[in-house]
Amino acid sequence: MASTASSLFTLSIAKPSSLHRDCFFIRLRSSNSISMCSEGFVTRSSVDLIRSGLSVSQARSPIRARATTQVMDQSVGEAGSKAPTIVEVDLGDRSYPIYIGSGLLDQPELLQKHVHGKKVLVVTNTTVAPLYLDKVVDALTRGNPNVSVEHVILPDGEKYKDMDTLMKVFDKAIESRLDRRCTFVALGGGVIGDMCGYAAASFLRGVNFIQIPTTVMAQVDSSVGGKTGINHRLGKNLIGAFYQPQCVLIDTDTLNTLPDRELASGLAEVVKYGLIRDAEFFEWQEKNMQALMARDPSALAYAIKRSCENKAEVVSLDEKESGLRATLNLGHTFGHAIETGFGYGQWLHGEAVAAGTVMAVDMSYRLGWIDKSLVKRVHDILNQAKLPTIPPETMTVEMFKSVMAVDKKVADGLLRLILLKGPLGSCVFTGDYDRKALDDTLHSFCKS
Amino acid sequence: MASTASSLFTLSIAKPSSLHRDCFFIRLRSSNSISMCSEGFVTRSSVDLIRSGLSVSQARSPIRARATTQVMDQSVGEAGSKAPTIVEVDLGDRSYPIYIGSGLLDQPELLQKHVHGKKVLVVTNTTVAPLYLDKVVDALTRGNPNVSVEHVILPDGEKYKDMDTLMKVFDKAIESRLDRRCTFVALGGGVIGDMCGYAAASFLRGVNFIQIPTTVMAQVDSSVGGKTGINHRLGKNLIGAFYQPQCVLIDTDTLNTLPDRELASGLAEVVKYGLIRDAEFFEWQEKNMQALMARDPSALAYAIKRSCENKAEVVSLDEKESGLRATLNLGHTFGHAIETGFGYGQWLHGEAVAAGTVMAVDMSYRLGWIDKSLVKRVHDILNQAKLPTIPPETMTVEMFKSVMAVDKKVADGLLRLILLKGPLGSCVFTGDYDRKALDDTLHSFCKS
Repeated sequence: MASTASSLFTLSIAKPSSLHRDCFFIRLRSSNSISMCSEGFVTRSSVDLIRSGLSVSQARSPIRARATTQVMDQSVGEAGSKAPTIVEVDLGDRSYPIYIGSGLLDQPELLQKHVHGKKVLVVTNTTVAPLYLDKVVDALTRGNPNVSVEHVILPDGEKYKDMDTLMKVFDKAIESRLDRRCTFVALGGGVIGDMCGYAAASFLRGVNFIQIPTTVMAQVDSSVGGKTGINHRLGKNLIGAFYQPQCVLIDTDTLNTLPDRELASGLAEVVKYGLIRDAEFFEWQEKNMQALMARDPSALAYAIKRSCENKAEVVSLDEKESGLRATLNLGHTFGHAIETGFGYGQWLHGEAVAAGTVMAVDMSYRLGWIDKSLVKRVHDILNQAKLPTIPPETMTVEMFKSVMAVDKKVADGLLRLILLKGPLGSCVFTGDYDRKALDDTLHSFCKS
Repeated sequence: MASTASSLFTLSIAKPSSLHRDCFFIRLRSSNSISMCSEGFVTRSSVDLIRSGLSVSQARSPIRARATTQVMDQSVGEAGSKAPTIVEVDLGDRSYPIYIGSGLLDQPELLQKHVHGKKVLVVTNTTVAPLYLDKVVDALTRGNPNVSVEHVILPDGEKYKDMDTLMKVFDKAIESRLDRRCTFVALGGGVIGDMCGYAAASFLRGVNFIQIPTTVMAQVDSSVGGKTGINHRLGKNLIGAFYQPQCVLIDTDTLNTLPDRELASGLAEVVKYGLIRDAEFFEWQEKNMQALMARDPSALAYAIKRSCENKAEVVSLDEKESGLRATLNLGHTFGHAIETGFGYGQWLHGEAVAAGTVMAVDMSYRLGWIDKSLVKRVHDILNQAKLPTIPPETMTVEMFKSVMAVDKKVADGLLRLILLKGPLGSCVFTGDYDRKALDDTLHSFCKS
């Protein structure tokens, strides 16, 4: 590979929609230039290049990869603070960076350059506020006396992701006389990010917002891509908006305070990226799941970065979920049914997704679309992550069916599902499947 | 003018932002072609052309005017049904037509071509439902058995434009198992349009919607341009979204059942267009206000069309209200304070806007920005429309100030206002004014 310690070069990845999902055009712009199409990631050296963001960063080799995702890894800065890895979400005039790294909340300039007005509202919860609220307020205001920061602390948990709790954000924003130039900051996990984002989308018909995710779940998935919303008593995320943040700031140090169960929950989404579109990432996970569970910093950082790259690429290609983006919901239709039927907050989102993924994989196998060995690998990796592989005992076939009937992926009465099909890393989003396979899966996982 | 009974020609109106607001480039494409710039509407024949949409329509001379707004008037169709006047709101891939005419609800194809899925939810209120719900359901389903129509009937009035009432729309949509391909139809006045639009923007993160406005207020203003939302107890329209409909269908026959007070309320917005950007329209109104109050069909149709053209042009140039669009809020900052302070629903929106317009004009005069004669003309035309020209007696200076402090046009603490400046038809949107003039205006209109 032509990279040297001091060279800067551009890597372009184009993916014409007419090609097979594993097929890319790759071009390196520097002294060397290649252009080719291949199954998977072109060549071994290209794969290593794409994978090696963090180690290259540590070796002081700046890389800029630009296409549907942009990655910039930089060396340790002069002041001793590490420059973040940057994954760019490419959405035209709504593009934004995801900053990933250790100690980023100690670098006020990262946040401050995305705050345009004079007032900020930090939205957080009772668990996260004692840990990180002061740190975030400091990052927003240090050397920046013109900015005033208000905050609202919501109760913690999925069961509070509702309209009553959302109204507390509006109440605080209005009582604080925030105006259109204010910025909302989501500090917390997926529930806080989704609620704060929807509040920002709706307050005065839309104000700036910034995501500071503090869970693996939010860092690898929910904070990226602009899906915001709240639950309705009859279903998850039924009320919301597509609304993109100004930036996402992932300080991996915040994971130090994350409970084990929350950590594992987030890994369910990491596994998802491997299954639906990134076989090499799945294989890496199979080898590194113990390191992830043991919170090995470099393993976690790599998993977050690679997940954000996958998410950013999908969102760039299909922001409003007209097709491709729906594949990110592998296991989620079954999972949402578990969350709704079992009661919000009984299981964590990733736990429900894990069981839902096993069900989707089971159904894919019943349809004859995947090999039996893949069913086993999915069980094994989720077991390694200590995630559930069956739904709660109280879930019935009828409970699944009634919740799945109001899923957002129903179109004109037809429930479309994300199912694996073909070799590892391949999936389909389809309503064209044998209903009997769905019935058989539900009956095999439910006692009644 | 080169128009003949059978000729079709194109009228282009370009308005470079660097030009004075009354200055247009106009080009006619047919056998003749002119291109020029002038104060006002170029030449008398051009003015007549632009103004004569309806009479030209009746004379069977099709006209297509395309620029920031598009107008197509067509002759009486073969089946005897009148083709509508069409004003196009030009917003790239979110462009849509406004259909204006008599008997449009008897032309099912107009609505049906904008319904994409199989399910429709009509959102209306207790006043409008007995009058037009059956007619709309018939228009949606006649010859179209695949479409099923649900409806939700909300209580009538501005005081119900709140989150609790909005939730009834979501409840109905979810209980009816509507999916992403459904269409919401707003049937009613501004409150219904704003609420239905915000519900459509938020349900499943966005579904199609159609506006069928049944009041002058909604037909000339609120149904066009995609502003949707609800009130908060501390201020009007503080929660909402910019979300554009698939089409706006204005059946002028629905005005036959409109109470006089509602009719007059809508005329406050018609007057607004004249004052801020269309001097000739204001002069036409001065001559035709009695005809409008007497519900002369051709006068009303012309006022609606001309208002929609003005609105469409402004929205096309500034969808998200970064500047120009704010000028449509002449009188609204004072008016919103009246609505909020006096209690939603005590005065109609247009009544509050009328009094607010007089206050904005008073302040403009105190600043030395307009001639005294214009102050009198505004009083006179609003008096002709039987609209209030002073706020309710119970409003105090403090009430105005506290509500105006949370107005959406506040930026970094500075309240920006729309004020008249210069000759009739000229205004500014500015925070750069002497605070004393605002204080003097408030004290002169309030007893305490």
